[in-house]
Amino acid sequence: VEIAILGTGSVGRALAGRLAGLGHGVTVGTRDPQATLARAAPGPMGAPPFRDWAAAHSAVRLATYAEAASGADLIVNATSGAATLAVLEAAGRDNLAGKVLLDISNALDTTRGFPPTLLMEGTDSLAERIQAAFPDARVVKSLNTLTAALMVEPGRLADGEHTVFVSGNDAEAKGVVSGLLKSFGHTDVIDLGDITTARGQEMWLALWLRLMTALQTPMFNLKIVR
Amino acid sequence: VEIAILGTGSVGRALAGRLAGLGHGVTVGTRDPQATLARAAPGPMGAPPFRDWAAAHSAVRLATYAEAASGADLIVNATSGAATLAVLEAAGRDNLAGKVLLDISNALDTTRGFPPTLLMEGTDSLAERIQAAFPDARVVKSLNTLTAALMVEPGRLADGEHTVFVSGNDAEAKGVVSGLLKSFGHTDVIDLGDITTARGQEMWLALWLRLMTALQTPMFNLKIVR
Repeated sequence: VEIAILGTGSVGRALAGRLAGLGHGVTVGTRDPQATLARAAPGPMGAPPFRDWAAAHSAVRLATYAEAASGADLIVNATSGAATLAVLEAAGRDNLAGKVLLDISNALDTTRGFPPTLLMEGTDSLAERIQAAFPDARVVKSLNTLTAALMVEPGRLADGEHTVFVSGNDAEAKGVVSGLLKSFGHTDVIDLGDITTARGQEMWLALWLRLMTALQTPMFNLKIVR
Repeated sequence: VEIAILGTGSVGRALAGRLAGLGHGVTVGTRDPQATLARAAPGPMGAPPFRDWAAAHSAVRLATYAEAASGADLIVNATSGAATLAVLEAAGRDNLAGKVLLDISNALDTTRGFPPTLLMEGTDSLAERIQAAFPDARVVKSLNTLTAALMVEPGRLADGEHTVFVSGNDAEAKGVVSGLLKSFGHTDVIDLGDITTARGQEMWLALWLRLMTALQTPMFNLKIVR
């Protein structure tokens, strides 16, 4: 499967590296590939410049958002929530049509200190806005509920005995995403229902952020015991 | 310890019955005790009339909100979130001063179908409003994150191997509540921090409600795996 990852941050890198390692064709999409590769300063939280990461992951290609999306069967939104709708517009409506769009973003306002607050209120979610803006994309919300390292290697914590979720209107698209999650090592994937259930996944971040502070690590996840 | 439970619904009954069973003196507070006892119709979700429950729990007293709060060392808010501030006003500012106030409420708008939406937005919580309105009370948010039966008997699910939280400004008050939780059988109580961390506990409800639908049971809880 050819996969486009939109976003060059820690989530995009984690997904791109893992998917390439599993044998998928992976292209990372960015606004301006030359500018992304020219950047020499560390990113947020001291992340190395993208070009250093790219040098260590030569199987992963870099392209514009539109080029990446146009060649892909499955598209991953790993951009920050505040930028997501503009990035998807740049990726191109026609390049999203009919494709599975895995949305990992969190709609956080990080401009006013820690913890960030949610940009969406309880009667809306970023995933729903994406689905409404791009009705021909098959949006599935998942993986925004845990830290990037555990998204792609859940076995690093308790042998993968914890839970992730999928929300979306298209059952087949949720099946595709669930299959990818299982290929990463996830053992418990709960289908919450239609795209409006993404509100629950997105609002979980409020508790996740406080737990990260209380536990002094992002290396945790919730398990739904039942 | 003398404990007042404000609220006669499923949460209030579960707490009152369990605390009385553990040997505490328990008084349930209601607006009008005679009216509460006169009610013969089933409550929400087919709950039996309070008088039937009271007949089976003769150690539990019934009184007005103010009478219950005035005689108590510890007060439990088990009212619906939409009614909470008015109930606490009726309980009496002086009757709350200096006391531990365990807030189990959820601020849900149930008037527009299922799932209900949260009355508070991401920059506020009911627990913070309670603390602001009654600055001399020692508010601790806890137990609003799981169903009533599991609040008081966590061992009914996976031998109690799941997680609850406390949020509050007063470390001693959080210690008192944590002790109560452990006496119920809770094995993992995470202190999230000050009262603003109650936002995380309250916003979790959005995911909890969707999980109840997906799992077709309220008998589940989250465990924080770390």
